[in-house]
Amino acid sequence: MNNNISDKNTGLEKINIGIIGFGYIASQVFSLIHNQRDYISKKIGKNLNITAVAEKDLKTKKEIIKKYKNIYWTTDANEVIEDESIDIVVELIGGISPALDYVVAALNKGKYVVTANKDLMARKGKEIFEAAEKNNVDILFEASVGGGIPIIGPLKSSLASNNISKIVGIVNGTTNYILTRMEDDNLSFEQSLKMAQDLGYAERVNPDSDIEGIDAANKLAILASISFNSRVLFDDVYREGIGKITKEDIIYANDLGYTIKLLAIGTDEDGKVNVRVHPALIPKKHILASIKDAYNAVYFYGNYVGQVMSFGKGAGDKPTASSVVGDIINIARNYDRNNKKVIYGCSCFDSKPIKHINDTINKFYILMDVADKPGVLAKIAKVFGDNSVSIQSMIQKQLDVKNTARLIFITHDVLNKNMYESIVEIKKLNVVEDILNIIRVEDLVNK
Amino acid sequence: MNNNISDKNTGLEKINIGIIGFGYIASQVFSLIHNQRDYISKKIGKNLNITAVAEKDLKTKKEIIKKYKNIYWTTDANEVIEDESIDIVVELIGGISPALDYVVAALNKGKYVVTANKDLMARKGKEIFEAAEKNNVDILFEASVGGGIPIIGPLKSSLASNNISKIVGIVNGTTNYILTRMEDDNLSFEQSLKMAQDLGYAERVNPDSDIEGIDAANKLAILASISFNSRVLFDDVYREGIGKITKEDIIYANDLGYTIKLLAIGTDEDGKVNVRVHPALIPKKHILASIKDAYNAVYFYGNYVGQVMSFGKGAGDKPTASSVVGDIINIARNYDRNNKKVIYGCSCFDSKPIKHINDTINKFYILMDVADKPGVLAKIAKVFGDNSVSIQSMIQKQLDVKNTARLIFITHDVLNKNMYESIVEIKKLNVVEDILNIIRVEDLVNK
Repeated sequence: MNNNISDKNTGLEKINIGIIGFGYIASQVFSLIHNQRDYISKKIGKNLNITAVAEKDLKTKKEIIKKYKNIYWTTDANEVIEDESIDIVVELIGGISPALDYVVAALNKGKYVVTANKDLMARKGKEIFEAAEKNNVDILFEASVGGGIPIIGPLKSSLASNNISKIVGIVNGTTNYILTRMEDDNLSFEQSLKMAQDLGYAERVNPDSDIEGIDAANKLAILASISFNSRVLFDDVYREGIGKITKEDIIYANDLGYTIKLLAIGTDEDGKVNVRVHPALIPKKHILASIKDAYNAVYFYGNYVGQVMSFGKGAGDKPTASSVVGDIINIARNYDRNNKKVIYGCSCFDSKPIKHINDTINKFYILMDVADKPGVLAKIAKVFGDNSVSIQSMIQKQLDVKNTARLIFITHDVLNKNMYESIVEIKKLNVVEDILNIIRVEDLVNK
Repeated sequence: MNNNISDKNTGLEKINIGIIGFGYIASQVFSLIHNQRDYISKKIGKNLNITAVAEKDLKTKKEIIKKYKNIYWTTDANEVIEDESIDIVVELIGGISPALDYVVAALNKGKYVVTANKDLMARKGKEIFEAAEKNNVDILFEASVGGGIPIIGPLKSSLASNNISKIVGIVNGTTNYILTRMEDDNLSFEQSLKMAQDLGYAERVNPDSDIEGIDAANKLAILASISFNSRVLFDDVYREGIGKITKEDIIYANDLGYTIKLLAIGTDEDGKVNVRVHPALIPKKHILASIKDAYNAVYFYGNYVGQVMSFGKGAGDKPTASSVVGDIINIARNYDRNNKKVIYGCSCFDSKPIKHINDTINKFYILMDVADKPGVLAKIAKVFGDNSVSIQSMIQKQLDVKNTARLIFITHDVLNKNMYESIVEIKKLNVVEDILNIIRVEDLVNK
């Protein structure tokens, strides 16, 4: 053994790690590995050893470079990938390009890869897993969903014998923070968004990735691919953001026993995959209703395990670093330089069609302002009835505006297509002044 | 390759499994492996193959023996252990003896072991892990805590880089069911226990294992050993059951914004391990308060991940089988007959002392009936004060009984020893008629 693979002082085998990208998360991964080095060595009997870091902007890293002179610092990611002594490449630059090239190149060099890159895994899983399997290595990506919460690992091991029929997740901390402020502090969407921006949860210039459900859709694509054993891409996910949710919606929902959350829902419906990210009214008594602030939670229904849920911090540098290093430990524990193996591999052995949102069935909350005169409700009810939309309950609210009544409908389970068609017709009724919002209702009844 | 290690039809490698004990859980493990065989094969590229079952009482199993003629059915567990073709032994007889002998013998024969046996793991971990390490194999026991909920796996992999400072769990479904009935349906302890017995949650003859917190203490010992990297035994756990909790306690707790749960709490306090199972008032707004019925949940605090919680069914044959087979899959995925390896091994590399309950600090709820006359409160308050017990709040309730007042105290954080001593003195006051209950209060503030 030479120095590259065995530690001079401890005699423990070294696992050499190269990091590509040295931003917010990577810095925390770096400090975790250094701070917890002895602790981790005691657990796994090996030393995690960062030997190289590639970062485009090394100028801003002078302090740390000076402190860690034994580490090879470079602006060229390919130097890390080509380094024969590196066992695990940690990709933390994010985005698709050039991350995809780096990841595939590292796998092709026979290195294991750990990433937190949800965009990449939600769009390029196929290419990546093919490269991993071809080279008898693997890519682990626990940090790509739910920050520090163990979700992907349990799905691939403890829960692996289950057919998963349903995923329901609160997987975006920023939108959950905003909805919590709106509900608990009676703030508007705009006020809450500003608070989220001030805290660094939401991006200041363009918060759409969170608000429009893009981040959540990436995570759902990843979870659905694993749960349903069929490749689900970001573009397969039906998506609505929370930008249209008002204080009033939240108050009315509360009156009806519901709270509003941005949900990521995936179901396997007789072999078709239904994946959607949208706000939904959920019962206040359901455990997901108690997930507040920037916390995340993911619910699974398995045919043996029943319901299981994981909860924790879905973002932030320390929780995310916890998952990245968890994956590194998972690889390092049973690492055999001379006999590399796929650990989990790709689980997408099936090829299930995606169900269109039109064919999805769920309940709806509909808020509309109408003329306050006799016969109006009959006209609206007729349109709903003609389109097979059955109403579970209706509340009429007093408004300050004269001659206008506010109606809140909750439907029974209806086909989304029928809902859309009835709304088109209702909008045409001259007694209807405005349809203020339409939000799905998920009763989350166990099944 | 011969038939023993490769499936004739699929060409996939066979992993041969022997089961010891064929009761309630084992039958479900058996049927899961048969029902999900193809699904599991697609995931892991290997066939799980039950080749032998040892069960003392084979007479009652005639139906299944007839159906599965290719399986070797025996009343002698040693035949399974000695069988050279078996790769994984699944121990499901429970209890210490003879389970310990079987497990150690199987490990000494170089077989991996999977068990759901919490008594065994909470008492004999040292011997078992020594045998596993000596033979380069491992024992997995996810099902011993929290039924189907992935807890041990995540602790040993995704969360492994964290120093865990605190565990808070609702780990006994039976007592949680009873407390839920008492709170939600306003039933007495006795009525709720009877319902739990009728549903098969609690044993009819001797429900003490649940009610007295024995089951929970076993599970806490296991979780604490892994979390704090130091062997914690069942006997190390301070233990109080729920038998003394009354409807009134629950109502008063509710009035104060609390709910009552049987908690398993483990903390690493400056290198000392504090482990205790007892009922506690917890804030109604805390997520653990929303864990109802027979569900379980375990909360961890890690120095990188922050708070994480897992929730699900903590018992039952199907969830437990899910975890047992999850462990089998975990072993089978990277199983190499010719190069066996410890997967996780024992994590107890430290040896931390156990903190005595007397030295524990927490808040208390104290319910007492006293003479309804001037000066009584002053006398009680003086005793508390003299013993450094500081009161956070006090409520006086009207009673129908003449000349008697009911007092409800909530203390600030106090040393348990001081609490005990003050209660001894308060009991001696002639104005105190009865101390009805003393229950710990856990505010579960994040840290």
